[in-house]
Order: sequence, then structure tokens, then C-alpha cells
Amino acid sequence: MRITVLGAGYMGSAMAKVAAARGHEVHLWGTWLDDPMLAPLEKGGEHPRLKLPMAELSLHRADRLQEALQGAQLVVQAVNSDGAVPVMTRAAPFLPDVPILSVTKGFLESKAGTMDRIDRVVSEAVARPLRYVHAAGPAKAMEIARDVLTWMSFAGPDAAACADALRGRNLHIGVTDDLAGAEICSALKNAYATGLGLFDGLVGKEAHNARAACFTQAIVEMRKLVIAGGGREQTVYGAAGVGDLHVTAAGGRNRAFGERVGRGRPAGEVAREMLAQGELTEGYPAISTAWRFARERGVQDLPLLQALHAIVWEDAPVAATLSKLRLSV
Amino acid sequence: MRITVLGAGYMGSAMAKVAAARGHEVHLWGTWLDDPMLAPLEKGGEHPRLKLPMAELSLHRADRLQEALQGAQLVVQAVNSDGAVPVMTRAAPFLPDVPILSVTKGFLESKAGTMDRIDRVVSEAVARPLRYVHAAGPAKAMEIARDVLTWMSFAGPDAAACADALRGRNLHIGVTDDLAGAEICSALKNAYATGLGLFDGLVGKEAHNARAACFTQAIVEMRKLVIAGGGREQTVYGAAGVGDLHVTAAGGRNRAFGERVGRGRPAGEVAREMLAQGELTEGYPAISTAWRFARERGVQDLPLLQALHAIVWEDAPVAATLSKLRLSV
Repeated sequence: MRITVLGAGYMGSAMAKVAAARGHEVHLWGTWLDDPMLAPLEKGGEHPRLKLPMAELSLHRADRLQEALQGAQLVVQAVNSDGAVPVMTRAAPFLPDVPILSVTKGFLESKAGTMDRIDRVVSEAVARPLRYVHAAGPAKAMEIARDVLTWMSFAGPDAAACADALRGRNLHIGVTDDLAGAEICSALKNAYATGLGLFDGLVGKEAHNARAACFTQAIVEMRKLVIAGGGREQTVYGAAGVGDLHVTAAGGRNRAFGERVGRGRPAGEVAREMLAQGELTEGYPAISTAWRFARERGVQDLPLLQALHAIVWEDAPVAATLSKLRLSV
Repeated sequence: MRITVLGAGYMGSAMAKVAAARGHEVHLWGTWLDDPMLAPLEKGGEHPRLKLPMAELSLHRADRLQEALQGAQLVVQAVNSDGAVPVMTRAAPFLPDVPILSVTKGFLESKAGTMDRIDRVVSEAVARPLRYVHAAGPAKAMEIARDVLTWMSFAGPDAAACADALRGRNLHIGVTDDLAGAEICSALKNAYATGLGLFDGLVGKEAHNARAACFTQAIVEMRKLVIAGGGREQTVYGAAGVGDLHVTAAGGRNRAFGERVGRGRPAGEVAREMLAQGELTEGYPAISTAWRFARERGVQDLPLLQALHAIVWEDAPVAATLSKLRLSV
């Protein structure tokens, strides 16, 4: 197959490498922000983030979008959530009618001004229904790129075709038709993973009990939000929900962000500081968009999300807010 | 209240300390194996495992069981699963008709020769129905004893009375009537936590994706086993299931055991080696009892538990068995 990957960051480059390993002809297109990723690859060097050579890929700079999409039989959307609408709007005239496997996670604002799923907002923006498949489940890019044992879940009507194209000996891919559930889980996991980090920061090394309670409550609340968004409860208890929250909360930038805020520092300051070091903390905006999503749909009784929003966006005191939490576990 | 705790190991001593902090009169009774725990406490020293003084407790050696239980208004059963029947059989003549809060986790063999819940097997052994409440949820003894923020769940008809007696500012306790579900979750979590350790051992440091998939599959399978045992699905998704598995899999002895077996060493050898160092790996026997429980109840399609049993009890090769796993996530 000819597969085009849009976005040359962590996950796009990892998926491109996976696709190439399956014998496909793979085109990796970088956005206007991805030049620093492509430059070393063009010289035969390593991807700056994944630290792997990618000589097996055809590379395309931002101005070569049409060329990159020419004849694509599968498109992988691997830009971050802020980039989804601008990139797909530019891509739309050249997009063939093929499945679009999205690894983009988050909510976006619809034309009506409400928080919605990325597939819906992009389809609305390009004024045509795109054949979205959402790639969910615990899948750190670094591990996928290095062919480390991974189980994922693809969601959407074309999920099986995407899974057939990409699965391998160490990459197991299940399929589901619950696109709504899988996307909403993905959008929520960064927000809730930040919560576990807050407890690390507040309690210190001995936060195992509190972290586990926070994880449990996150699943309870994600279930409510997924149902409110038209997804299925079982999706929350599978790879897209429990699985992806587990891998996200185990470490990484959201946890680091939460930890610093949990120690009592203002969230905005921590986010700016991390951004200055080149680290995008997805959990910071994710808490805001998740809270909007919840309120717009009238979802009640979300004490953890409410506490996260209060701490991160309303300057509520961390210790008092977290220790008084009445969890429904 | 007068509260008697049976068992002076990690969890019994921690619960005794919690009870004393609430102002109760607390009697800590040690089994015939607990003399090394009590000896330093009797001299005003620290508990050898928890590293905390316990001057606020009345201490009783193994031969003072009647004295320890005299006038108890709440009994905490905190022996390990092997000790539950022998200790409660000796205690039975002196046991008042009060709630028994059990922190003991595991399955035991009933008189019919099948794996069953501890409350049922003990009640059968003493030939009288005991008023069991099961203490579930993510609650490492060390953190409870030090009053670190914790959310637990007590299950059983008398759960509310037990929770009222023990909850505090940093110890939140929810209640449920699903004794069956909570006990079965507790019995299974050591088995499945071992699974995450196996992936650590097999894959090495980069096992985040595989660990998360294993966690998810564990929840899927625990749901089936809980339903087969007469418990409720929702209990699996709460503190007793998701929460306790999370805290157990995050570290500790089962993970250490799994890690060594995951590197390819025979499970029996690793278990003996750890026992010689004074570390009881509950996950080792737990895999065997969970597998018996599943088979005796005819529960089908448990690929993870089957793989764990094959590796740990049937000498199946780790890498081949785990990498071929077809998970239902």
C-alpha cells in the first residue's frame, strides 16, 4: 500500500516506521513546524525525538502536501489537536476517499462553539465527511517505533482495514466500531493523568494509595463523559480508556506537570516553563476542554475533574482541594 | 470502642494504628508466627516492618487469644490467607457476635474441595455464619499507618459500622454491600499484578504499552470471574478492582517476582529464593488458586490468566507465551 503520514512528530514518525516495516510505501509529510524533525532525516541521520534512522521513508516538507498525498491508500493524521483543522483544511483538496487513521487526541471547538470530537470538527471544517478511524490504546510512540510488544485498538467503520495494514508480530491491534467512545477516552486521558501527578506532588513518594484511588475515579468519570458523548461504556474499560490512561499516568509530561502543580506552584507558570523547554503539556489545556465538554453536556457529579479544573484553572489550593475530595469509588 | 486486631503483620498493625488514632481502645494480638513483630513493641520499640512505635496499643501474644477478644466490639482479621482458618477456628469460642473486618485476601479451599471466598470458608470451618466485612481498595499498609491520603471501600452488611469506626481526615472509606465482588477482586489482584511484572522482566524498561495492555486485560478477566462468583461488575471498576490492582501492580513483591520470572527463571525457584529472604510472594499461589476458581466455575476465555498459569505453574516459555497473547482489549 501507499501510506501517507501527516505530521513528523513522535507519533507520526513512529507510525510511519511501523507502516514501512510492514512493507508499505510510506510518505512522511512534516508540517510547517516539523522542519527540525525532517532536516536530520533528509541527511540520513536520526529522528531528533525518536533517535532512530528513517531511511525507508519518503520525506516531504510542508509545501509538498499535494505530492505527499498523491495516490495515498491510507492517510495517517498525526498532527497535534491544534493542528488538525489547519492541516486537514489544506490537505482536503488532495485527500483521496480513503480511511484516515487519526492518532490526534483531544477535543476541538465546533462551529457552534462547543467542544466536540476531532473527526466531527474536521469533517465540518472541510465540509465533507471524512472516513475517520481513531487509533486508541496504550501506545507510546517510542515503544511502537522500536517494535516493543504493544496492544492497541482502532475504532471506526474502516478500523479493520487500517488494522490489517499495520499490525505485526509485536503490534496487536483490536478493532471496534465505537469511534465516539474511543475518541472521547483519548481526549480525557491527558486531563485525568495530570490528576495522578498532582497526588505525586502533594503527597510525595508515598502516594500509591491516592494515585490508585485517583485512577479509579478517573475511570468512573470517563464512563459518564463517554456515555454523554454517545460512546459505549465498555470502551472505557478497554484499551482506549483503562489502557491508555494507565500508560499516560505512568509517567511523561502530564505527570511531570501535575507533580509540580501538586507541590503548590501555579499551573500557568509551570506550563509556560515546560513549554520553554520544548515540552508541551497536553494535560493543561485538556483539563479545560474536558471541563467544557462536561458542562456543555450537563454531566453531573464529576468531583475529580472539578477539582482538577479548580486547581489548574481557578487557582484553588491543592492540598485542601484534593484531601477533601469525595470520590465515588 | 474496643477493637481487637488479629495478626500483627503489615496490615494488622497498620489497621491497629488507624483504630488507635480514632480514639478506640485497641488490642493487637499476634499469631504464633508474630512473636518477632511483638517483641520490640513490648519493649517500647518500633514495629519491625512498619518502622513505627505503637505504644498506644495493648499487645497480646498468641496464647492470649481469649484475653485479646474479651469485650471486643469490632474484630479485625488481619492474618494471611493460610492463617485465616486456623486462627479463626481457635478464636471462635471467644468471638463475640460483632462485625469482623477482614483484610485477608485470597481464595481458600472449602470442605467440598473447591476454591471459595474466605468469609464462606471460615464460616463453614467454625460452623457458624460470621459477620464478615471485607476491606478492599488501594491501601498499602505503610501509607495507612502513616496517615497518608487513602480512599478504601468496605463491603458487607456491616460495612457502614466498620467505616464509621475507622475513617478519618486522610482515610476516606466508601461502603458497598457487594461482599462477593470485593473479596473476589482482592483474591485476583495479586495474580494479575504478577502479570505486569512478567512484562517488565520480559521487555525491560520500555514495557509501558505492554504493562498497560496487561492491566486492561486483567480488568476484563476479573469482571468475568467476579460475575461467575456472584459479585457485581461495578465492583471490579471501583476501588476493590481497578484501584487495588493499580496499587498492587505499581510495585512490591508480586511485581518483583513477576519480573524475575519474566527474565526466564523458573517460578518455583524465584518464589523459594524470595521466601528465604523473608518475602512472601502472594502472586505465586494466587495464580494457582485463581485458575482453579475459574475452572471450577467454568469461566471461559481468560487468555491472560491462562498464560500466567502456564508460565508460572506449567513451565511454559515466557517470551513465546506472552507475545502470542490474544487479548480482548
